[in-house]
Parts: sequence; C-alpha cells; structure tokens
Amino acid sequence: MAKIKTGIVNVTGYAGMELARLLDGHEEVELASVTGRSASGQKLGHYMPHLDNSNLTITQTLDDVDLAFLALPHRESASEAIKLYQKGTRIIDISADFRLKDPALYPEWYGFEHPCIDMLAKAVYGLPELYREQISGSSLIANPGCYPTAAILALMPALKKGLIKNDIIIDAKSGISGAGRSLSLKSHFCEANEDITAYATEGHRHLPEIIQELKKAEPAQDLCITFNPYLVPVTRGILASCYAGLKTSLTKRDLFEVYSSFYRDEPFIRVTDMPPHTKQAAGSNYCLVCPTIDKRTNRLVVISAIDNLIKGAAGQAVQNMNLMLGFNEKAGLEASPLFP
Amino acid sequence: MAKIKTGIVNVTGYAGMELARLLDGHEEVELASVTGRSASGQKLGHYMPHLDNSNLTITQTLDDVDLAFLALPHRESASEAIKLYQKGTRIIDISADFRLKDPALYPEWYGFEHPCIDMLAKAVYGLPELYREQISGSSLIANPGCYPTAAILALMPALKKGLIKNDIIIDAKSGISGAGRSLSLKSHFCEANEDITAYATEGHRHLPEIIQELKKAEPAQDLCITFNPYLVPVTRGILASCYAGLKTSLTKRDLFEVYSSFYRDEPFIRVTDMPPHTKQAAGSNYCLVCPTIDKRTNRLVVISAIDNLIKGAAGQAVQNMNLMLGFNEKAGLEASPLFP
Amino acid sequence: MAKIKTGIVNVTGYAGMELARLLDGHEEVELASVTGRSASGQKLGHYMPHLDNSNLTITQTLDDVDLAFLALPHRESASEAIKLYQKGTRIIDISADFRLKDPALYPEWYGFEHPCIDMLAKAVYGLPELYREQISGSSLIANPGCYPTAAILALMPALKKGLIKNDIIIDAKSGISGAGRSLSLKSHFCEANEDITAYATEGHRHLPEIIQELKKAEPAQDLCITFNPYLVPVTRGILASCYAGLKTSLTKRDLFEVYSSFYRDEPFIRVTDMPPHTKQAAGSNYCLVCPTIDKRTNRLVVISAIDNLIKGAAGQAVQNMNLMLGFNEKAGLEASPLFP
Amino acid sequence: MAKIKTGIVNVTGYAGMELARLLDGHEEVELASVTGRSASGQKLGHYMPHLDNSNLTITQTLDDVDLAFLALPHRESASEAIKLYQKGTRIIDISADFRLKDPALYPEWYGFEHPCIDMLAKAVYGLPELYREQISGSSLIANPGCYPTAAILALMPALKKGLIKNDIIIDAKSGISGAGRSLSLKSHFCEANEDITAYATEGHRHLPEIIQELKKAEPAQDLCITFNPYLVPVTRGILASCYAGLKTSLTKRDLFEVYSSFYRDEPFIRVTDMPPHTKQAAGSNYCLVCPTIDKRTNRLVVISAIDNLIKGAAGQAVQNMNLMLGFNEKAGLEASPLFP
Repeated sequence: MAKIKTGIVNVTGYAGMELARLLDGHEEVELASVTGRSASGQKLGHYMPHLDNSNLTITQTLDDVDLAFLALPHRESASEAIKLYQKGTRIIDISADFRLKDPALYPEWYGFEHPCIDMLAKAVYGLPELYREQISGSSLIANPGCYPTAAILALMPALKKGLIKNDIIIDAKSGISGAGRSLSLKSHFCEANEDITAYATEGHRHLPEIIQELKKAEPAQDLCITFNPYLVPVTRGILASCYAGLKTSLTKRDLFEVYSSFYRDEPFIRVTDMPPHTKQAAGSNYCLVCPTIDKRTNRLVVISAIDNLIKGAAGQAVQNMNLMLGFNEKAGLEASPLFP
Repeated sequence: MAKIKTGIVNVTGYAGMELARLLDGHEEVELASVTGRSASGQKLGHYMPHLDNSNLTITQTLDDVDLAFLALPHRESASEAIKLYQKGTRIIDISADFRLKDPALYPEWYGFEHPCIDMLAKAVYGLPELYREQISGSSLIANPGCYPTAAILALMPALKKGLIKNDIIIDAKSGISGAGRSLSLKSHFCEANEDITAYATEGHRHLPEIIQELKKAEPAQDLCITFNPYLVPVTRGILASCYAGLKTSLTKRDLFEVYSSFYRDEPFIRVTDMPPHTKQAAGSNYCLVCPTIDKRTNRLVVISAIDNLIKGAAGQAVQNMNLMLGFNEKAGLEASPLFP
Repeated sequence: MAKIKTGIVNVTGYAGMELARLLDGHEEVELASVTGRSASGQKLGHYMPHLDNSNLTITQTLDDVDLAFLALPHRESASEAIKLYQKGTRIIDISADFRLKDPALYPEWYGFEHPCIDMLAKAVYGLPELYREQISGSSLIANPGCYPTAAILALMPALKKGLIKNDIIIDAKSGISGAGRSLSLKSHFCEANEDITAYATEGHRHLPEIIQELKKAEPAQDLCITFNPYLVPVTRGILASCYAGLKTSLTKRDLFEVYSSFYRDEPFIRVTDMPPHTKQAAGSNYCLVCPTIDKRTNRLVVISAIDNLIKGAAGQAVQNMNLMLGFNEKAGLEASPLFP
Repeated sequence: MAKIKTGIVNVTGYAGMELARLLDGHEEVELASVTGRSASGQKLGHYMPHLDNSNLTITQTLDDVDLAFLALPHRESASEAIKLYQKGTRIIDISADFRLKDPALYPEWYGFEHPCIDMLAKAVYGLPELYREQISGSSLIANPGCYPTAAILALMPALKKGLIKNDIIIDAKSGISGAGRSLSLKSHFCEANEDITAYATEGHRHLPEIIQELKKAEPAQDLCITFNPYLVPVTRGILASCYAGLKTSLTKRDLFEVYSSFYRDEPFIRVTDMPPHTKQAAGSNYCLVCPTIDKRTNRLVVISAIDNLIKGAAGQAVQNMNLMLGFNEKAGLEASPLFP
C-alpha cells in the first residue's frame, strides 16, 4: 500500500529539521517533499549530515503531498496555508497563525491582520491531551507553542478541578533552540553560554495563547496571569514553573492523585513526585509534570519539563498527524529520552 | 606599616578558593594563613594552579590572624567561631551559623542546637546595603547566603517604600557552583550539563533568612513568601525573579526612580531598565537590579543578577572586611565583569 | 516465539544505562535482568526516570539470561565472566578484560594478573568492521574501548592499503561521559565546564589496545604511535585526529575513494569529505570518518567522530549482539543522530 | 601629570571589547576614544553593560590619541594604520596585517596585496617573550594571532635548544570566541554547544605566521609543520598540543629544566609539569606551558594553554603597550585567572 505522502515547508529551521528527523523514522508515512529557500537545490542529507541517508532534494516550492507541515515564520505561514487548504491538503501549522481564536489578537501581538478568519475558525488547537477528538477529525491543526504546551499541561488539571485561585505566575526557562536558528547575538555561543537572562519582559507572544486555553478551563474566573520567559544555556528543554494560590487546603498526596488520574491514559504525560529534569525529556515527546504544594503559603507549585523541539514543536506535530491519519498515537515517537 | 593579617578556614571549597583569589589581589591586607583538611601540607599555589604565585602552605589549623574568614559547612563554623571569638579575632562567617536571629530556627532548618546564642545576638547580618554602619563597628559578621543576597536586594526598595502586597514569589536560578565543590551526582558534569531542574522543593534553607530580612522591612504585613531554587548549567551566577502584586498603580518610570534613588550611593548595585544577564555580573561584586511592572496584572517583577561566588559569597565578605577595617569599600573588588 | 533474554551487569554506570535504553527499544530481545549494587532493590524506571516505563527491579545478582552484557570495572568483569561462561551464557564484555591478546599487558596496564587466559584466547575483539565473521560465531566478545573504536576506524583503511609510514599521532578529544559516572573532581561540572585539558599524558590504557589492532593491519612495520586524550566540556562525543606521513603522493580524491570503498557496505560508517562534528553522530551508532591530506607536508590527516557511549560502548555492544544472534545488524540502532 | 591617551578602533568585536575592559582597569593610561560603526553614537557603558561606569561615546572615527589599538578585520586594518602612522600615532595592530614579513604571503593567504610594504618592514612582531627589546623601541606592533602565541611559546625552547627534528604537528583546540563576534551558524549556540569539530582543514591563516617564527628559531632545518585547529564549546581558551620527534634521548626532568630556564624571568609564562587546563589561564594574561616526553616513541609533547582573548589578543596588546611606553610590563594585567 502506498504510504501517505508528507511534506515540510521550510525544513531549514530547527522545527523543520526536527520534523525531518522524526518523519524519517516514521514507518507509516513518507517524507516526500521539503522546501527551504536558502538551501534550495541541495540534498537534504547533505544539508543536514545527521540525516545523510536521505536522498530528497530541498526545493523552492512544495510538491503535492497529502499532509503538509508548515514550519514558517508567522504571517508567511497563513499565506501558504490558504493555498494548500484550497487544494485540500491537510495542514499542521507549527507557527502561531491559527492558534488564536480571536482575530483581533493578531494585529495586537503579531502585527498583521489575519488574512483568512474563516480558516481560523476551523483550525483545531493541536494539544492532544485537551482536543484529541477534534484533532482526529480536522484537516487544519494549529500546533501549540512550546511555552504554552508546558504551561497548559502543568496547570490544566488544577484549573479543571477548580483547585486554584485566579492569580497565576508562570516562570519558564528555555533552552536556546527556542530562539530559532536565525542568527542573532542572543544566540551567539559566547553571549548565551554561561549566562542566564530574562527576555520579552514587556509581554511574550505566547501569553495570549496561554490565556486563551487556560480561560476555557476556568471561564468563571478572571484569570490574572503573569508569564515570564528565560533563556538558559542548554540546547533543548523547557522547564515551566507555575505558581497559584490554592482555594482550599489539600494534601500533596491528594494533589498527586488529581494529576495522575487526569493524565491516566495519556501516552506522553508522566506525572512525577520528584522535581523533573529537562534532560529526562530531551530527545523524546514526553512531558513530565510534577505537582506539589508549598505548605507554608498554601500555594500550588507545578513544574513541567519538555523538549521544546519535540513535545513543544515537531513531536507534537507528529502526534497530531498520527491522530488525524488514524495511526497509533505513538508511531514514530517511541524514542526514550537520551540521558545523559 | 604592617598589613592586616587575614586567614581563611577551609580554603578548599569554592567560597574559600574565591576568597583566596580576592585577598591575593587586595593591597591592604595580607593573606597569612589558610587551612584545609584534605589538602593540608600542600602549597596553596600548587593546590590551586590559578594562584600559583602563592607560597602559602595549607595547614590543619589557623595561625593567629587579625581577621578570619570561615568557609566551613554549617555547625562546624559555629564551633570554630567560638574559639576565634574568644581570642579576639575578627570573624566573617560565610556559613549560615550566625545569620538567623531566632535560635529556634537552627534545629528546624539545620538540624542542630545553636551552641552560642549570645554570639548569635551580637552577629551583624553582612549585607552592606542594609547594615553598613553596624558592619563597620562589628567584629562578627554573618555573611549572607547567595540567594538571600539576590532576593533581598531585589525586593528591599519596593518593601521599604510600601509598594507591594504580602504575596511574594521568588524563583531563583543558580549556577552549579552554588551546590559547592563536594562531589555529588547533581553536580556531575554529565548530569548537570544540558539540564534545567528545580531542587529543594520542600523548602530551601535560605528561606528563613529571606523571610527574616524581608519582614524587618515590612513588619506590619504577614509576608507570604514562596522561594523556589533551580539549577542551570552555568558555573557562576544567580538570576532571581521576584513577583509581587502592587498595592497601587505605578508607572515603570516611577518604579525605576524609586529603585535608582534607593541605591543611589551604592558602589556595587546597578539599577538597570534592561533585563540583566548573569554574565554581566560574572567575575565581579556587582548586583544588577531590574525593576519592572507587568501592566496587565499590575504585578511588580524585579529581576536581579549576581555572581554567586562573589557578591553572593567571597566578594561580599571582602566588602564587609573593608567596612570593618575602614578601607575603601571597593578595595580589592574593582574588577569589571569578565564578558564574554 | 519467546524473545531472547538479555541482562546487564552493573546497569548504573553510563555504559550500563545506555545499554538499558537501547535494549528497551530493541524489538528482538527482552531485557530480563539488571544488576547494580548501589541501586539494588529499586525499580529501573525509578532509578532512571528517562526509562520510567520499565518495571524491572535492579538486583544484586543476575538472573539466568541467554546473553549478558558486563558493564563492570576491569578485573571485576573477568571474575563475573568466568562464572557466566561456565554456565554457557553468551557474554559481551564492555570492560577491557578480554581485549588484549597478550596476557602480560594486564599486569603492566591494569595492575592485575589475568585470571583466565584460555578465555582471553577465545574472546573476539568486537569491532564488526574488522571481525564481523568471528563475532557472528563467538560467545565471548570483548567490546572495544571508545578511543580505540574511533582511532582504529580512522586509520585502518590507510594502514591496510599500505599508504602511511610508521609514525602515527592520535590526538583524541572526548566528552566527559568518557570519564564515567563515578564522582571525581575532574567530572565536577564547575571544574570540567569551560575547560579544555589533556590527561593520562603518561600513557592511557587504551594505547595497548590501539597498538594491538593497528599492528595486525601492518605487521611488517614497527609502528610508533603516540596517543593523547583530552577532555572537553560536552557530555557525549569523541573526535579523534590521526596524523601520519604518506608513503607516496596521493590526491585527496584518491584517498577518499580508498576510504569509501573500504567502508562501502558498512551500515554505521559514513565517509565524509567535510570535517565531521561529534554532534552529527550524537545519539546514534554512526562513526563519521573524514580522510584528508595536508598537501604542504604530505601528511594523512583522518578525523573520526563517534558518540562514545554508543558506537564507543553500548551501541557497538548491541551491534555485536545482533551479529551473534543473527539479527539484522542495525536492529535497535536505527536512531538518527539528535541534532541540534 | 596627564595620562597617555589611548584609543580602540572597532571596539565592538571581542578583541576590542576585551581591550576596553583591560584599559579601563589600567592606571597609567586613559581610554580616550573608541570607534565602532554599528554602535556609533551609543555610550560604551550602555553598549557593554559590564563596563557601565564608562561615559565614553562610541564614534565613527578615532579622536587624536597617543597610541591606537586596531581591532579591525584584516585589510581594513592596514588602511587605517597608514593614516595613523603618518600622523605619528603609535599603533598596536591586532589584525594580521603586519605580522607576515614576506609581502607575497598576503595575496596567498589573505587575498589582498599589501598596501604599505615599507611599514611591514618596520613592524615588530609583538611577542614579548621573543622580541621584548624591539617592541620597546617600536611604534608599530603586529600583535600575534591567538594560535601562533600558544604554539610558538610551546615550541620555542625546544627549537632554540635544537632538541627536536623537523616534523612538527600542532593540534590546537579553541573556544568559540576565537571565531569572533560576527554572526554565523558555526558560532550559533545550538550548533557549537555539545560539539567538537575541526575546521580550516585546507590550511588556517595562522599557519604562515607560525612557520615564519618557528623557522627563525631553527633556520638550518626545513620545518615540516602541520597545524590543525578545532572548535570546542567553551567561550575562552586555547589548548595547543605540539608533537615532534626528539633528536636525542632526554629525561623529562632535563626537558623541564630547559623550559624553566628558558622562561625563568618571564612574567606571564608558567612552566608546569601537570597537564594544563585552559581554565587555569582564563581571565588572565598567563600562558601555561607543559613540556613532556612520550617515552615509548621518544617524542616531545608540549601542551600550552592561554585565554585566547587575553594572552592571545587584548592582553598581549596591553603587554606590548606597557613595553612601548616604559611601564611595568604587568600593569593592568595583574588579574589572576578566574577559577572555577
């Protein structure tokens, strides 16, 4: 039987590269076409020596495929998606262009008017732990951002169970690959190495996405969310720390039970009672979630860990693809974390 | 004129090593004696090749000196301090043994009964920005912990000016040297490298010290402080993020003015309006403090950066020594940060 | 059909951990028993959270298995091997205890008399690229050291083709995991990080192993080999640079052809004309080999790159197992390198 | 007395930044003017927050100064030098534009015809350990490259004493700051981190400089030098390993004596019998030199370690300035290495 044909638009960034690696090891699909302006004409396996068994040539435009991953910068992604959607190609968009349900948020946070509001309405937010069923039936997936994935998975059980008050602080530490493969001083080795810093202190673009999803879980409350991102010198990994006051008193054991039961059947969530290490998720699609309580102040503290390029981007996209195409949800995502 | 003689008890840990480096470059004092059990009998310059111009021999017990730095583990430090105090030696204790004013906190947090409660009462908490005058007149200094230094300097102006509510979250990221030079898996290169993790989620020993000092600034309020420490793979550096609700509305410019004016004459505090980098403090005694406001939630967010081995330990100890001995407060601490 | 049962003696070091990870993903075998003194009694998945789907309990002694991997320190490995060999268990020994054919080298380099010289004679040096056939028929494999793997694969084509003179210099840079998981200052994060250093300048234990194998390729010449190892702050990876004078003049293209043709059918060797990066091998069983010529001096310069824990240890062991058991040589080793 | 006025042309690269830091702490001179195209108009202390006490404004063109440091790319440096030389300004050129005595090497290695061959003849190669006297009397200094500094200091005693044969291999590992502050994928954090690689395998531009100086030491022999550079993920540091056959047999003790006596009065050379760590030189102007012998092959192995931005660039430039201006050679360079 012919395999499903997939393609990657803009394979040369880190999300695109990681998609190529994962799809290369996926037995149910074929990676049939990859594009990338700067590297157009090169063999994929030459451009990315770690994938040197690949004979695919990087092209300017995408060949016809059954399902396309868009790993473009925002705005460009929407344009490309419109064209593919009209052709009936299934789309998983790694950019932010279909994540925000309120079109007014695009000019405010991304500086452009959304070009296809009807598509926005049809897009499904691709977090399988919340929207598995909708994803299965959809042909346009907005793949979540890396920070939102880590933060939403950390907070959702507490919010849905009504455990916490409306004051939430998310302090999230990211590896440098989160800043992308484009060149800039902030990702120059000598500036990032041996450094810890905050950025986007005026408001990071992932904030409205976090608010949108957390509010759905708790529509009654007016959530008051502060989200601060940090860069630390690792290549892969996000550790998100979420702080919120508990409405009532609760034992740690009860809290752990709430989380374990919420995520009982999830193939990629590991609820743990030990502080998670990003290294325990690196190279895998897992999200580690550690719920705990600061008893002195009766605050919930949930710490989650992901590999930002996998569960925070390419791996989650493949998980979405598996759902859309009716494959085993773990297909191509079985790799254990690479430790140490 | 004979120089003041100083000594370091336990020179072989990172705080002790850093003291040796700083005192080696200090023109007003002589490093006359250093102790260290495991390395006893070796030349300091052989044991620490980066200081190989030193001819001092590491000994078992301290020779008579005018001022002694104790870089021992807690509990051992108190025992040593008692002996030196009786001889009239001035003491700067890097450990926690004289930091907590309430003796009952020692059994609770450190697992031992404090052996000299009267000395505890006489000890001055060695944070020059708060206690400069008392330090100058004291002969027993409790050198602050690394996290408390970063957190207190970040929050003090807001607390003293009555700007913030009582709910405070401190999320502090530390380099691995903060875990000391003793061997353990958590500081094994292969486990710490490429990793981000939380630790001491049950309550870190620096918490009572932070509470003690912040409460002094705001005795009217019942502060509700959560403090979570994190390890990130850099050798030196702490970045402390402090979150608290503002009592009233305030412009960023006004906030900046409050902080700038609070620290106007401080030789080692740099108030900045750009997110600070630990690398901008590394190798120096500076503390960078960046006060800002999350306007969406009206929360104060203050981020501070220090070199944990300098302003967070050995450098602050030298600053205290300078005050005790009437030297220029910056003597021996003029080095600019080493960037990149 | 029942799967072949495998076991790991001393699963708690890095080679043992990596074996557990690889065998966990190997579809043809079952990981049935793991031992480890310090962690005895714990669940493997608790001790190694990155493998937390495992329900195996770490024990003191190995259960009966069909094939055992020994990841013990040298000398202990030989003792264990004797017992298993008598029971008829197939053995792949990761230590050095069966690598050196000349028993006299053990007292000289490892400080002990070899306890079972007849087993030594039967052991096959487990470098599939040289001894594939013997490995297939053997039940006792001496898995090569990490440096020898990188150096031998780099030099073998040139030696076998008689291209180089007898003066050889091997300058090999290793990541810190090569120093093992035992605690020591040299692998303390703060000492290893931001450092480059040589070690074992008096002669590294991998030297006799390198000499033994290279001499077999060129018995006529009296090889004069200098081997110097270096530690650099990465977790995984060896980059071995091999220098030797060329006997005659040769074009780079011809040299490349010699290497390509020598390794034509090798599933894990990638001959490349671009300087290899260890990161292009990390997480995989590949060895990248880049042969080139310094035309000014007519010297061969071959640079090879491996993941020291995979092709340099656990991966090569699995490759050997696959050969011994008649599986596809790549089974369980299909993972692409993890880049970036 | 008015201080000598110094200036830095192109302060925004790493060599320029490091010069600014060192001159800022130098008591005998004033940093009076700094240029930098991209940052022109900004305060130096704003552009480089680690130097935020500086009030100097970065300008397009250099004000009149007594001595100028040129930290420009090659070719541009020569143009600038011509203008300054005609005005009588003393010059220390950090680029390669005055290092090579044979003008024919410029087209070959740097791709341009040298514009002022008479100045080339007058320039002194600024390695104080070899040319102290000439430097003192010169007004145009060609500051050595980082690799040549490490390699020449490692090999010079052996060559001058006639100990080694003509076959020399230099395998030098460098931190990423050696690749400069310009943006490129090879210094992107995610590509350089956790990687070890060779580069410039066709011939690095520092090779003719190394040959020129080593040949002067041994004009009778036709030296046959291979030089291979490597990038490892540290910010600062070069570890150069130099291999050469010994002409006669020699004890390690005798060799050590040769080196110790050769460098007896050198303020910045530390001859050591333990493998040096780059970290033991980081942040300082020291060069550690460890001469040893591979007794099995009778080969000399000398390993040297420097901070590439200090002894390999800015620090050596300041050392040269001190000699030119008659200051204490160590002025402004007293800092001990920053360890850990």
